[in-house]
Amino acid sequence: MRSDRQVNELRKVTIETDYVKHPEGSVLISFGDTKVICNASVEERVPPFLRGQGKGWITAEYAMLPRATQQRNIRESSKGKVSGRTMEIQRLIGRALRAVVDLDSIGERTLWVDCDVIQADGGTRTASITGAFVAVVLAFGKLVDNGVLKKLPVTDFLTAISVGVLPDGKEILDLCYEEDSKADVDMNVVMTGQGEFVELQGTGEEATFSMQQLQKMLSLAQEGVTELTHLQKDAIGKWAEVIDKSSAVKEK
Amino acid sequence: MRSDRQVNELRKVTIETDYVKHPEGSVLISFGDTKVICNASVEERVPPFLRGQGKGWITAEYAMLPRATQQRNIRESSKGKVSGRTMEIQRLIGRALRAVVDLDSIGERTLWVDCDVIQADGGTRTASITGAFVAVVLAFGKLVDNGVLKKLPVTDFLTAISVGVLPDGKEILDLCYEEDSKADVDMNVVMTGQGEFVELQGTGEEATFSMQQLQKMLSLAQEGVTELTHLQKDAIGKWAEVIDKSSAVKEK
Amino acid sequence: MRSDRQVNELRKVTIETDYVKHPEGSVLISFGDTKVICNASVEERVPPFLRGQGKGWITAEYAMLPRATQQRNIRESSKGKVSGRTMEIQRLIGRALRAVVDLDSIGERTLWVDCDVIQADGGTRTASITGAFVAVVLAFGKLVDNGVLKKLPVTDFLTAISVGVLPDGKEILDLCYEEDSKADVDMNVVMTGQGEFVELQGTGEEATFSMQQLQKMLSLAQEGVTELTHLQKDAIGKWAEVIDKSSAVKEK
Amino acid sequence: MRSDRQVNELRKVTIETDYVKHPEGSVLISFGDTKVICNASVEERVPPFLRGQGKGWITAEYAMLPRATQQRNIRESSKGKVSGRTMEIQRLIGRALRAVVDLDSIGERTLWVDCDVIQADGGTRTASITGAFVAVVLAFGKLVDNGVLKKLPVTDFLTAISVGVLPDGKEILDLCYEEDSKADVDMNVVMTGQGEFVELQGTGEEATFSMQQLQKMLSLAQEGVTELTHLQKDAIGKWAEVIDKSSAVKEK
Amino acid sequence: MRSDRQVNELRKVTIETDYVKHPEGSVLISFGDTKVICNASVEERVPPFLRGQGKGWITAEYAMLPRATQQRNIRESSKGKVSGRTMEIQRLIGRALRAVVDLDSIGERTLWVDCDVIQADGGTRTASITGAFVAVVLAFGKLVDNGVLKKLPVTDFLTAISVGVLPDGKEILDLCYEEDSKADVDMNVVMTGQGEFVELQGTGEEATFSMQQLQKMLSLAQEGVTELTHLQKDAIGKWAEVIDKSSAVKEK
Amino acid sequence: MRSDRQVNELRKVTIETDYVKHPEGSVLISFGDTKVICNASVEERVPPFLRGQGKGWITAEYAMLPRATQQRNIRESSKGKVSGRTMEIQRLIGRALRAVVDLDSIGERTLWVDCDVIQADGGTRTASITGAFVAVVLAFGKLVDNGVLKKLPVTDFLTAISVGVLPDGKEILDLCYEEDSKADVDMNVVMTGQGEFVELQGTGEEATFSMQQLQKMLSLAQEGVTELTHLQKDAIGKWAEVIDKSSAVKEK
Repeated sequence: MRSDRQVNELRKVTIETDYVKHPEGSVLISFGDTKVICNASVEERVPPFLRGQGKGWITAEYAMLPRATQQRNIRESSKGKVSGRTMEIQRLIGRALRAVVDLDSIGERTLWVDCDVIQADGGTRTASITGAFVAVVLAFGKLVDNGVLKKLPVTDFLTAISVGVLPDGKEILDLCYEEDSKADVDMNVVMTGQGEFVELQGTGEEATFSMQQLQKMLSLAQEGVTELTHLQKDAIGKWAEVIDKSSAVKEK
Repeated sequence: MRSDRQVNELRKVTIETDYVKHPEGSVLISFGDTKVICNASVEERVPPFLRGQGKGWITAEYAMLPRATQQRNIRESSKGKVSGRTMEIQRLIGRALRAVVDLDSIGERTLWVDCDVIQADGGTRTASITGAFVAVVLAFGKLVDNGVLKKLPVTDFLTAISVGVLPDGKEILDLCYEEDSKADVDMNVVMTGQGEFVELQGTGEEATFSMQQLQKMLSLAQEGVTELTHLQKDAIGKWAEVIDKSSAVKEK
Repeated sequence: MRSDRQVNELRKVTIETDYVKHPEGSVLISFGDTKVICNASVEERVPPFLRGQGKGWITAEYAMLPRATQQRNIRESSKGKVSGRTMEIQRLIGRALRAVVDLDSIGERTLWVDCDVIQADGGTRTASITGAFVAVVLAFGKLVDNGVLKKLPVTDFLTAISVGVLPDGKEILDLCYEEDSKADVDMNVVMTGQGEFVELQGTGEEATFSMQQLQKMLSLAQEGVTELTHLQKDAIGKWAEVIDKSSAVKEK
Repeated sequence: MRSDRQVNELRKVTIETDYVKHPEGSVLISFGDTKVICNASVEERVPPFLRGQGKGWITAEYAMLPRATQQRNIRESSKGKVSGRTMEIQRLIGRALRAVVDLDSIGERTLWVDCDVIQADGGTRTASITGAFVAVVLAFGKLVDNGVLKKLPVTDFLTAISVGVLPDGKEILDLCYEEDSKADVDMNVVMTGQGEFVELQGTGEEATFSMQQLQKMLSLAQEGVTELTHLQKDAIGKWAEVIDKSSAVKEK
Repeated sequence: MRSDRQVNELRKVTIETDYVKHPEGSVLISFGDTKVICNASVEERVPPFLRGQGKGWITAEYAMLPRATQQRNIRESSKGKVSGRTMEIQRLIGRALRAVVDLDSIGERTLWVDCDVIQADGGTRTASITGAFVAVVLAFGKLVDNGVLKKLPVTDFLTAISVGVLPDGKEILDLCYEEDSKADVDMNVVMTGQGEFVELQGTGEEATFSMQQLQKMLSLAQEGVTELTHLQKDAIGKWAEVIDKSSAVKEK
Repeated sequence: MRSDRQVNELRKVTIETDYVKHPEGSVLISFGDTKVICNASVEERVPPFLRGQGKGWITAEYAMLPRATQQRNIRESSKGKVSGRTMEIQRLIGRALRAVVDLDSIGERTLWVDCDVIQADGGTRTASITGAFVAVVLAFGKLVDNGVLKKLPVTDFLTAISVGVLPDGKEILDLCYEEDSKADVDMNVVMTGQGEFVELQGTGEEATFSMQQLQKMLSLAQEGVTELTHLQKDAIGKWAEVIDKSSAVKEK
């Protein structure tokens, strides 16, 4: 049994905006002791495969400071290559963000989203997605305020949360590092504010899971996502209403 | 609507064993026009992080011949690095196989599983997992026949299949390349012969999906998995019965 | 003494065309247990050093599946670099093919030739060249049939074979892996259908060879080349006659 | 003329200790808008060239978050190599720290010092050294408190500051990014608490400087170093007195 | 005490011009047993960051033959990356040369300066800078002689020398390898013919140095620089007078 | 027709021994304007694949200074990888040297042979082999003189020379760069002092060659090899006689 919170309870989540001064959107997000700086930068061009099509792109990069973890990790720049884990996570973040942004309406621009974990305690990828969404809204918001874009190109909220199954068979929400290490099943769920799935990644760690367990985990994830969406609304201020309207339209 | 088969129908699947002569287990698997050589090689040592623990490991590598696809791709050895997509797939294959192998009982050995796509038409990762399982069983079977292992260290069958949602909202099983390119949702499901989930990876491609769509996709996947398991049983001959018993025991 | 064939006898050689569906030319060639997939792909541009000169280029890449050999080799994409052996072989294949193709008449196009060894038992480079030639003819033939090229830009046949000297001083043709491992001298001969040399690479392996031994080896090579040219003619069908005429003209 | 401070005035400098929870020593240091996380990690072994000698080592790594600067920089892990600028800075940090630590008395241990710039506005290397020193003292202090080391192996304080010459010929202390960009001369001075030089790196940027200008710059640097040493004393608490005694002994 | 020369004495320095035939400027310089080939090559374009600005660039590369040193070093091309030490040195050489060349007057050209150490005995970077300057003058001189440039774009002489402090506290000029290995302080000074500083890099090697020691070292450096400038004048012949006039003008 | 020498005439060849002071064997060899530094270094261990077998190894590395050629080449250390051409050449040099050294008698040592081209005008690989042989003899000679080896482990002389066919059909010996650029056929021949072949590499450059042309080229090569062997004898002094005896024994 969890000592400090209920199985369906999130850790304390905080979102601090304008954390660093240069980026168009900058956020420090905490899921308990997991802390991630999420910066969104606007670049006035797109990758080669999109040139001349009049549409934009969002790409994400993810990294951890070497001592974000209990043991120091070798820096990926020193190793000269990005690990498979890092690649998976940054591809996931970019794909998830692109699902709620209308890329056709942002012109030939790239939004670079950098998620840098300064302290890790489980759930770095879900914190990254949840924080990155806020940084993206702030960056696009700035482009709207500056008259570069006519309207906010964001079609819905986007949050992510982990769920899992402990060895005793108990399903839990928002796993910290210690829980994650011993869990039989680890699932990351990315959802919109409207409750639609964007990504679902469930993995048995030398174990498997049943349809019934899947249903319980998805139900826990739904609870977490609702709460995270509220926190995002507080963080983005005036843009919350704009997205609410936009997603309601999409719904129909 | 699909022209050549039902929405819940697999493409023609064939499994040719002993395809190449050197590996301990070797398979050529076809899912329609997708053809993958799956070779399993036994190495008499384990990676550094496992040394001295008396247990074994399974690791997988995945690649495509440059012209397996409609357009020629640059060889990853020429680029000097493995793409994020390749890393994701080979990590997935290895993780999935480890879920149905009793690593504690194989001694300090590594099973290298190489999945090389010689022709691609969608579903290369699901064909790879399904074929790799057969190669793994054959390789371990050889170790049992040679007296190196006392019993087959395989606890259940393992198959993988893709499901998706077309733009018209129709859920389909086993997407070919053309379907995959236009699908709104793409999901890969890895399951045991007992119907348990090993991996679930669903992705909205600049789109999202509902709980209802998820349920329909999982139901289609279940149909495909049942059929693939039958084909695996034919391919592995005498070992099918051994695994059936082993998985029945695990069930209890 | 060889147990299974004469010193001047080739292993069983087979050439299967249209092996893979996407490439413009595709061949599976076997020299005994050595099996190589040779794919020729047309790209509608040339490398930077040739741009604007109105002529084309042929470039080759060579690789082995990790378990093509008795011991598994580490994948070159994982190592992040191509070995010296691989580079030597692929440079040789490309150079040899360019000697029998009229690059001035193919326009600003590159023919990429991929030779991927799926099973190795000695002679992979000679099988690659011999098979690649067939794939190249089929690819150019398709361009002629489609009206892209006016005539087949191939000036002669091109085959390759290995010869060597065993420790007992006996010269032999077409060495399998076991023979190659113990040979004192290893020579690869690339020749045209007209009996001209394209490449000659003889190497004493911590040994040397005399002028007399060289002459005997070249004589054996000539026998092998004649037979391989016949097999190529069968494989390329209607194009055989075209090349015969073309090489006869060149002769004068 | 500087608008906001005197030519011999530092920007506001703050040192926040225990910034991140895992490292043995962790500091967030600010020189105005320049912010650097300095983490010190203890590893229980030394690099190969020192093994078996009974002494320890200190090594430093330096990096900037991609959007620490006005324009986003490509991540060095994505480029696959560390830039010359990064290498120069991290070699400087390590060398400077080793000058005030008694490596013979720390056993076969490595102290890894990671300086990660989260916001940059000039002077990132001097802020890194000044902050890293505090992190190092805290890390060694923890080893003393835990009984691993008998006494603090730090022989003196260590601070660094930049000085320069503006195009109008005026010497200034602690250059911000804008000043650094236009300066004719840029010099970084690393000094001990006793006023000895550890490193001196002066560079004319397509310009030169006279002996007289050098003297004025060194005088300004001395002023800055005195102030920074006071701030370090406040940050390290009880260890300040220990180092004062240690450096007084060394003096004699 | 030095056995073979005074503390303020240089080793025998020789400068052989036109050492290799292809480069526009080529020099073999010796500082005692340290021998460096310095080649200057003109390229008719500039790096991307300068394109279209009508000005030129100078860039330097530095390397050592593997057996230039007592122990053979692994070739940097084999390691696949350039070491931090190499990067530091080549950045220093390029920066120093740019301080005495009028880049605005050379058109959109790059001067590549290659310093290759064929035998090393301490002071390779100072020999490189001193020799590179001569190669640069010869290369630009050739452009003037050919009418490509109107006048020599060199504003002053440029030489470099090392100074240091031995463990006995004695300051010395131009350290050989053995002296360098045991010195407490190592400083490289780059100066113009007019006695202005271009670069100053002083390093305590697990040691520190006082203001007084700094002054003595700078005084020794001044002596060495005067002598080296004379040797450069002899080497460049007619161009010496041109630079003398140019630097006199700059002085005013 | 050649303006400056006969078709069967070598360029002026010089061999300067003890060129650089640190290596066990050091040679500067010139074939006309082609100049190569050949250094042989003894390392007291062997590569992993030979450990514990009591025998030694010879490995070679080859490089060109960036401006050894008419156009400056990018440094391979900057590119981060060694080109295919470089690999081919250094593999050839190592293999050739191993053919005339008794590796069983040198103990577990590696001889590193570095061939660095400082000026190139055709024939760099043949000059490298011819010079490397002398450096190797001098290095082993030093080991004999020092009592480390009982006898010189060199079984025969080793020289290399290029031959080719010009477009007018004329066969020539020892091609300079200009001749090499336009030749139809380029062949490198490595031979022992006894006239045995070690390596034979003939290449038609978008051309082919007949058996008759091959014979003429081999005859020219024989003439060149005889002359080069004489020059080697002069360069190695007392060791010439030792090798002569050794090769006479081998002959029988």
